[in-house]
Amino acid sequence: MKHNLADRLLDAVDEKKNPSVVGLDPRLWRIPDHLKEDAKESTDDAFKAAGEAIFEFNKGIIDAVHDIVPSVKPQVAFYEKYGVEGIRAFKKTIEYAEDKGLIVIEDVKRNDIGSTAKAYASAHLGEVDMIDGNTVSFDGDIVTVNPYLGYDGIEPFVEVCGEYGKGIFVLDKTSNPSSSELQDLVTEDENKIYEVMADLISDWGEQLIGERGYSSVGAVVGATYPEEAEKLREIMENNLFLVPGYGSQGGTADEVIPCFNDDGYGAIVNSSRGIDYAYEDDDEFGPKEFDKASRKAALEMKDDIMKSLEKGEKVPDGW
Amino acid sequence: MKHNLADRLLDAVDEKKNPSVVGLDPRLWRIPDHLKEDAKESTDDAFKAAGEAIFEFNKGIIDAVHDIVPSVKPQVAFYEKYGVEGIRAFKKTIEYAEDKGLIVIEDVKRNDIGSTAKAYASAHLGEVDMIDGNTVSFDGDIVTVNPYLGYDGIEPFVEVCGEYGKGIFVLDKTSNPSSSELQDLVTEDENKIYEVMADLISDWGEQLIGERGYSSVGAVVGATYPEEAEKLREIMENNLFLVPGYGSQGGTADEVIPCFNDDGYGAIVNSSRGIDYAYEDDDEFGPKEFDKASRKAALEMKDDIMKSLEKGEKVPDGW
Repeated sequence: MKHNLADRLLDAVDEKKNPSVVGLDPRLWRIPDHLKEDAKESTDDAFKAAGEAIFEFNKGIIDAVHDIVPSVKPQVAFYEKYGVEGIRAFKKTIEYAEDKGLIVIEDVKRNDIGSTAKAYASAHLGEVDMIDGNTVSFDGDIVTVNPYLGYDGIEPFVEVCGEYGKGIFVLDKTSNPSSSELQDLVTEDENKIYEVMADLISDWGEQLIGERGYSSVGAVVGATYPEEAEKLREIMENNLFLVPGYGSQGGTADEVIPCFNDDGYGAIVNSSRGIDYAYEDDDEFGPKEFDKASRKAALEMKDDIMKSLEKGEKVPDGW
Repeated sequence: MKHNLADRLLDAVDEKKNPSVVGLDPRLWRIPDHLKEDAKESTDDAFKAAGEAIFEFNKGIIDAVHDIVPSVKPQVAFYEKYGVEGIRAFKKTIEYAEDKGLIVIEDVKRNDIGSTAKAYASAHLGEVDMIDGNTVSFDGDIVTVNPYLGYDGIEPFVEVCGEYGKGIFVLDKTSNPSSSELQDLVTEDENKIYEVMADLISDWGEQLIGERGYSSVGAVVGATYPEEAEKLREIMENNLFLVPGYGSQGGTADEVIPCFNDDGYGAIVNSSRGIDYAYEDDDEFGPKEFDKASRKAALEMKDDIMKSLEKGEKVPDGW
């Protein structure tokens, strides 16, 4: 058994004194022109050029933030868009970020029946069978998964997490407006679906609790639903929360505080667009210095969350 | 607006007089040795060899069944396993099957918040923005999607389906044993979650009903739950069902009949392992003739379903 992921992630949070995550959501039309011009000059293949521009953009951001944040979260949809070359950029991004000491959360929200979930788990977190022998494929640290199919589709991930020291965040209460349609339905026992799911996630994670008291099976809880987060924090006391929705989606630093436990741990907060495209609204740094604008935005986010943690009296000991 | 997908799919079902789908789930260790040997000889790169063996295997099956089935369903997990080269095999498989006149269901179960779902929809069904201009990427006909996030995450797919004549199947009652954990929960209004979802899917599909009375927004309903299927058939009268779970997962032809309407339409039934690896249990055809064994198994499945449709008095007019 490799080092527990929850322990590893919390150690990284302590090292940077920062519970935030930079989402890497490359939207080609918002990537600075000079990167796209360089990419076009390097190849005649439009997909290769797109992949190259995306990777160079990510590289700039990773270089600019790797010493201040513990983790990055590439959202695979923005890579998958570009097929083979997009996936190449995704894989290169994971490798580059890991080389820089970052914990990589692959935001893939994969889900399927057991035998298929096993293929996803081996692809993203474990080892895959080749014609001869086994090898790693994407080799991320953590993936997001969707629980609609129940534990059959989660178990293969949990097994791989145990074996390879990896982690998952299971969707529970998502940050988007229509998350209520299914997740807020009330059962005959007067529980909301996201509460039922929270109980399940808590159970699923029990076997992977590390030395620091948290499980490598965490939950996705949107910053946009602070009241729900407060309830969920009680149900899932040993589960880390991945909190999307801060920044561009409307969640504030004060609103993410209920996701943290009183010891100041238990949540990591993601911002994607607000960091990636910070240069668009920055007076100091333009497109050629997009990386500096991203670093500045990441530091502002860190300060913003820290102030709210102080206000909520949830600053970890020793920070 | 392009030709409605539901119309296109039902025309294909009529043409082949067969409502079945061949799932393309390439498991490397079950692919005949001669294909793997050939692939290894063609390259020193283990991932490229895996991708090549997978594509050649699929090509054999597609060649063997394209004149008898209307559709194939590659399950992306088994390709994604092999990273860039796996995705290359996935894309080549889609293209090859479409060239052979088959409707391609990309079994990807994608899901995310709206802005991200839009990226997935454009990748798999629509057009993606390149550095200059737009182009198609995977260009499948249909994708499977997961509804845990509500309509925000479905709407971008529905829009693309309208614009490009494509379709989606939304997970409702899945074929796996633990599907009950979430999908069978009972709400305070005494509805099961899969019934609530069915109402939503019916609403979501209303704007895409074609000339033949079915919507391009369909539902995934497992063959392993015939009683549930009967209820769901009533709620979603205009929605096509993609029915997994026949064969290797334990569903029988009689059990899939409740998924059909009285007119004999309304469902397509998938088998993956039972067709792909038919050669393993075939007395007549061994690994070198895996394609012939697959054709034989596909014809047996067609007959099996047809007999059950006859028994249930659900054979379409004119077949």
